[in-house]
Amino acid sequence: MEENWMELEAEELLQEMLTLLHEKKIGKLREMLTTLNAVDIAQALSEVSETELPLLFRILPKELAAETFIEMDNDSQEFLISAFSDKELKEVLDEIYVDDAVDLIEEMPATVVKRILRHTNPEMRKDINQLLKYPKDSAGSMMTTEYVDLKKNMTVAECFARIRRTGVDKETIYTCYVTDRDRRLIGLVSVKELLLADEEQVIEDIMETNITYVGTLEDREDVARMFDRYDFLAIPVVDGEDRLVGIVTVDDAIDVLQEETTEDIAKMAAVVPTEESYLKTTVWTHARNRFFWLLFLMLSATVTGGIIQKYEDAFVAIPILVAFVPMLMGTAGNCSSQSSTMIIRGLALEEIKFKDFLKVLWKEVRIALLVGVILALVNGVRLLLMYSNNAEVLAQVSMFQLIVVSGLSLIGIVVLAKSIGCILPMLAKKCKLDPALMAAPLLSTILDTCSVLIFFSIAMAIIGI
Amino acid sequence: MEENWMELEAEELLQEMLTLLHEKKIGKLREMLTTLNAVDIAQALSEVSETELPLLFRILPKELAAETFIEMDNDSQEFLISAFSDKELKEVLDEIYVDDAVDLIEEMPATVVKRILRHTNPEMRKDINQLLKYPKDSAGSMMTTEYVDLKKNMTVAECFARIRRTGVDKETIYTCYVTDRDRRLIGLVSVKELLLADEEQVIEDIMETNITYVGTLEDREDVARMFDRYDFLAIPVVDGEDRLVGIVTVDDAIDVLQEETTEDIAKMAAVVPTEESYLKTTVWTHARNRFFWLLFLMLSATVTGGIIQKYEDAFVAIPILVAFVPMLMGTAGNCSSQSSTMIIRGLALEEIKFKDFLKVLWKEVRIALLVGVILALVNGVRLLLMYSNNAEVLAQVSMFQLIVVSGLSLIGIVVLAKSIGCILPMLAKKCKLDPALMAAPLLSTILDTCSVLIFFSIAMAIIGI
Repeated sequence: MEENWMELEAEELLQEMLTLLHEKKIGKLREMLTTLNAVDIAQALSEVSETELPLLFRILPKELAAETFIEMDNDSQEFLISAFSDKELKEVLDEIYVDDAVDLIEEMPATVVKRILRHTNPEMRKDINQLLKYPKDSAGSMMTTEYVDLKKNMTVAECFARIRRTGVDKETIYTCYVTDRDRRLIGLVSVKELLLADEEQVIEDIMETNITYVGTLEDREDVARMFDRYDFLAIPVVDGEDRLVGIVTVDDAIDVLQEETTEDIAKMAAVVPTEESYLKTTVWTHARNRFFWLLFLMLSATVTGGIIQKYEDAFVAIPILVAFVPMLMGTAGNCSSQSSTMIIRGLALEEIKFKDFLKVLWKEVRIALLVGVILALVNGVRLLLMYSNNAEVLAQVSMFQLIVVSGLSLIGIVVLAKSIGCILPMLAKKCKLDPALMAAPLLSTILDTCSVLIFFSIAMAIIGI
Repeated sequence: MEENWMELEAEELLQEMLTLLHEKKIGKLREMLTTLNAVDIAQALSEVSETELPLLFRILPKELAAETFIEMDNDSQEFLISAFSDKELKEVLDEIYVDDAVDLIEEMPATVVKRILRHTNPEMRKDINQLLKYPKDSAGSMMTTEYVDLKKNMTVAECFARIRRTGVDKETIYTCYVTDRDRRLIGLVSVKELLLADEEQVIEDIMETNITYVGTLEDREDVARMFDRYDFLAIPVVDGEDRLVGIVTVDDAIDVLQEETTEDIAKMAAVVPTEESYLKTTVWTHARNRFFWLLFLMLSATVTGGIIQKYEDAFVAIPILVAFVPMLMGTAGNCSSQSSTMIIRGLALEEIKFKDFLKVLWKEVRIALLVGVILALVNGVRLLLMYSNNAEVLAQVSMFQLIVVSGLSLIGIVVLAKSIGCILPMLAKKCKLDPALMAAPLLSTILDTCSVLIFFSIAMAIIGI
């Protein structure tokens, strides 16, 4: 329901906008646009032609224009900047937050960046240059420098005066930060507490001094996860000398959580992650991001082929054996994928830690035994139903041998698959590798080899070929 | 680094707490606990024994105790409630928000629920009963009824007076909702706007009237995604007659986003999702959640076995053919898993919609051709290197046939795998099924069968067995 609504909205919206534009009903168009959210306008604008884009954009009121600009895709942003007059560019840049300006600059080509920096005011340029110095995935790179800072000897009334004076440009005013003379963070106070406090009270007496904060170099994924864990609206970022340099807000944390999960999911499917969305990524880039894993896994799979070849005499004598291979390899892959996926997600959410290694392994072994034995029994019944009257097969091997060989193989393979499926991601975590790489594609390739080895070894031993 | 810090913290914390408790340094212990975040205290308490748990819990100041209680796992909560006196239970319940109370009640056994309801005040009991009526995954079930409501003829000063009077118990005060006489939502105003406005201004003149809101029955995943899209701190929930009945806050939205992603990831690995964390889930439950998919896929895989059997004459005559099967099946599985994963995630993030069907399919076909042809070439080189001096193999089949058969099979299989990998999730979405079910395990089972069929058909045609 919601999906249809969103889809219809976006298309109807666009149609309506273009109709009003072509009929030159600019007043009505502006009225319509101001009722909309910047994200929705940006989405609609991403579909219009290059001649209509600047026309429509110029109709937006200043603040909404800047908000919409920030939500647009990089190509549209670059095109719009080239279409802007210097005055227009300056107007947009004056309205956007420093962290959004940094994101923009990181995506634009060098000539555009120069033009952007030329039209930002000196103070903002200084902040932008500072933020650009932090590593790409750090807290420093995702923070904004626009927060409200207070001094500990201010009264509540003075704080409100300061918020009223400086708050309009701040990304959030709901958490205010108390710093000392050296800009060191010494406390924080929420607007809620300020509102509920007496006007005469001094900040020092009501501020919270047990502060959770992060360093500028902290990994942005860890920062984002703190929002999930502690339900913050913002978190302060300090430099090496505990001086407050910025804040990270919850909206950016949500974006990072979603992006990091998307990256993990791509890695788990043996795809090199990109930042662009699926549709925006070219065929070449998609192919490149997928090719190397496919090649590596294809070549690894020939090992399994080689092992099967080694047992040529066995399956030429008893061809029915080959029929078991897809089932065993498939079950091995599915079992390992189940375990590794649960473990990788648990590690990402920090529900599982390396110290739980033995606990997890013991759990997986028990699950595997339970599942493996039942699968073996069901498979035994299937064999009885399918082959007990099949003279051709029974001439090759007895029903008892068939059931025992495939049953034992199944149990062995399931236990191995689930063990490897939990061991590899946890070891990867311990070795500071990304656990998401130890997922289904790699594991099933490893387990294909193991399955064939286990199956033919058991078959040779029991049937005695 | 951060992980170690968190791990050490939790364990050191616990140690420190227990030492202080056993030395009866209660004052110091309370001092230490009040510097901590409720989430961290709850985690530490989840490790202590049942005799120590109530002792430690009773040391917490009232408000922190309630916050900590809400963060604990269900077993500890149930145990603590049984250990509480009526007075203690009432104190905790008085401090918690309605939506947290509802979450608690949904997890507790009936006798505990009765005791909880007996000790909540009548107004809260009414709210709880109301919220319990909404379906489990609806906006109604995740909202809270504690918000600030204003009337349109109030001045800014009157609004602040109202916030000061009623705000202390509200989950958020930063967005205030303006309702008419029939409780219908007619506007909203942020505390930031109130602070920046003149004290004498009337709310009607400054409130935002273009409001994004949701209905009580809206799917909670869609609601959560609106926070991701629009960067809200809270979103109002209205009933069938547009009356404001509650709000959803961003912290709950983050939880839902994370939970829904975890569910999707589990489904993509052919595991039935649970709400409990990995370590809290019993071996039986894990086994049950994994078994049926494994059984279904194992039995489906026997179809592939059956098809191989059909080509018994072919591979008994040319045993080298069997050696290609793992490579072809593996590549098919990996290709389909890459495509389906990217599509499923794109659909979940609403970056891809059903109307993009043909665009996506055409993209995947081109990616597949590109990747397939290069893989076929690499594979050809590998065959030349491995078998050009292998008389046994060359007695069965010519090098040219080997390269052409495996190359054509590879290309065909890759194109099929990537096509099915994008078609099935998109069709599932269209049919209101969960696209996450159309992931690697199911697809690779389907593609195993297709791979074997394609490979042996091409082999029969070209080698002419």
